[in-house]
Amino acid sequence: MQGNLTVLGLGAMGSAVAHRLRTAGYTVTVWNRTAAKTAPHTAAGAHAAPTVAAAADAGDVVFVVLLDHASVREHLDPAAAHLRGKVVVNLVTTTPNQARDTAAWAADHGITYLDGAVMAVPDMIGTPEARLLYSGDENAYAIARTALDTLGTAEYTGTDPGLAALKDTALLAAMDLMLMGYLQAIAMMRTAGATAADTAAEVEAWLAAMLPHGREIAAIIDGAAYDTGGQSVDFDRHGLASLITASREQGVSAALLEPHRRLLDELAATGHGASDWPRIIDRLTVPR
Amino acid sequence: MQGNLTVLGLGAMGSAVAHRLRTAGYTVTVWNRTAAKTAPHTAAGAHAAPTVAAAADAGDVVFVVLLDHASVREHLDPAAAHLRGKVVVNLVTTTPNQARDTAAWAADHGITYLDGAVMAVPDMIGTPEARLLYSGDENAYAIARTALDTLGTAEYTGTDPGLAALKDTALLAAMDLMLMGYLQAIAMMRTAGATAADTAAEVEAWLAAMLPHGREIAAIIDGAAYDTGGQSVDFDRHGLASLITASREQGVSAALLEPHRRLLDELAATGHGASDWPRIIDRLTVPR
Repeated sequence: MQGNLTVLGLGAMGSAVAHRLRTAGYTVTVWNRTAAKTAPHTAAGAHAAPTVAAAADAGDVVFVVLLDHASVREHLDPAAAHLRGKVVVNLVTTTPNQARDTAAWAADHGITYLDGAVMAVPDMIGTPEARLLYSGDENAYAIARTALDTLGTAEYTGTDPGLAALKDTALLAAMDLMLMGYLQAIAMMRTAGATAADTAAEVEAWLAAMLPHGREIAAIIDGAAYDTGGQSVDFDRHGLASLITASREQGVSAALLEPHRRLLDELAATGHGASDWPRIIDRLTVPR
Repeated sequence: MQGNLTVLGLGAMGSAVAHRLRTAGYTVTVWNRTAAKTAPHTAAGAHAAPTVAAAADAGDVVFVVLLDHASVREHLDPAAAHLRGKVVVNLVTTTPNQARDTAAWAADHGITYLDGAVMAVPDMIGTPEARLLYSGDENAYAIARTALDTLGTAEYTGTDPGLAALKDTALLAAMDLMLMGYLQAIAMMRTAGATAADTAAEVEAWLAAMLPHGREIAAIIDGAAYDTGGQSVDFDRHGLASLITASREQGVSAALLEPHRRLLDELAATGHGASDWPRIIDRLTVPR
């Protein structure tokens, strides 16, 4: 492989990306706000640039691995002229609209823009287990593809530059709620003296067995009839009330379960008590 | 196998239990508030009793599969004298304290009491996939064990009669939050035109890969030092804020994610911003 690549930002993720691209055979130029962090990279054969502009000049594809959206705009704005005609791959975690904003800015400056979302921790970079989502300019994806494939399993999600961030945040939200489920169960079982490790092992086996139920929920939602005769909103309210009461009886907050109850109550109050409970999804998209 | 068993309540679960016990070779007597529901059972060889008292007289072990805790006490109280000396296995979904209350009532009336929690839908009864938790009188478990084993995989959780209900509700709470995760992701991805089925398939694969992270969280909680240098409360607040903003930008409520944010904010406000984020569990057991 050959090619000149630039990596902006040498935090844990930026360092992993720069390291992987260099070991894959690319000529890599790095820049970091704190220059001292470039030392291990130059010692290993990378070039260090003193400014973002100089780093941009050195690469055909520029990987951005800064802290957040604000730092992207802070550091890229002044170097726009140096990025013109380049491919910029933004791996910073952002919201969909932030990705769209940066894409619009890039278009204004003649920059070919690809937004990325890294669904992995730094240690996983360079392995197939690292999943990286991309969206935006298809041409940018084609140009950068060989380099992107060295970082992990690449997936192009579409031309809307916000799509990678949307899918990233949607999957992370699902994971977040699953992890809150672990905490709730651990807190409840601790009241009977169970270790967190024992409860986590139980929860892991149980959730693994229950994961496929998501398909049934999805079929109901895609059907949008909400009259399959499965578990109703009223049935779900009854069951959830038991969970909340059980939790409180044991001295454990039911705060994490309360939003589900409020959504069900709203459905019941609007005449949907007999609907299939996945109708909750309608309440998530009601303007408030 | 031989023995006289009674099943009180012929809803979907009670019918499945009665059917399974009968096909396993037991002499089964059924009772239901609405007598018409006994017809398919008597046609298949079961006996029907006109009252709870008569049904109790006919069985050595009495399975209770009524609607809820209130209906258990409503129907069993007047028949207490007929249940004396019998084993009562209560399969009604209750909270731990409700199970303890019924156990105390049973002890007052010379009834040997076993509380059960059925982690299965009626169709699963009689298969190893049906998991049934039991707690309370060990002798009752020993006496009923052969019959219990015909219903599914039996697990005795301890002498505290509330334990089966506690474990049941803890695991159901974890599942509930996981299912809310599916809904949140489906709602977000629908704004980009993705079907619920496509998103559910993505979420299922993603969560299956992320499930083992529960073990790391458990190790931190059991260690209780909250200083492993992993993701901190402040880091988690930053990430969660992105998820919430992304959701709202797409016109999707972030209500399901809000309790997690409030718990993190409470930790930060009490000087724990640098702690490992699983310290959230402490906030779940703070008296409020």
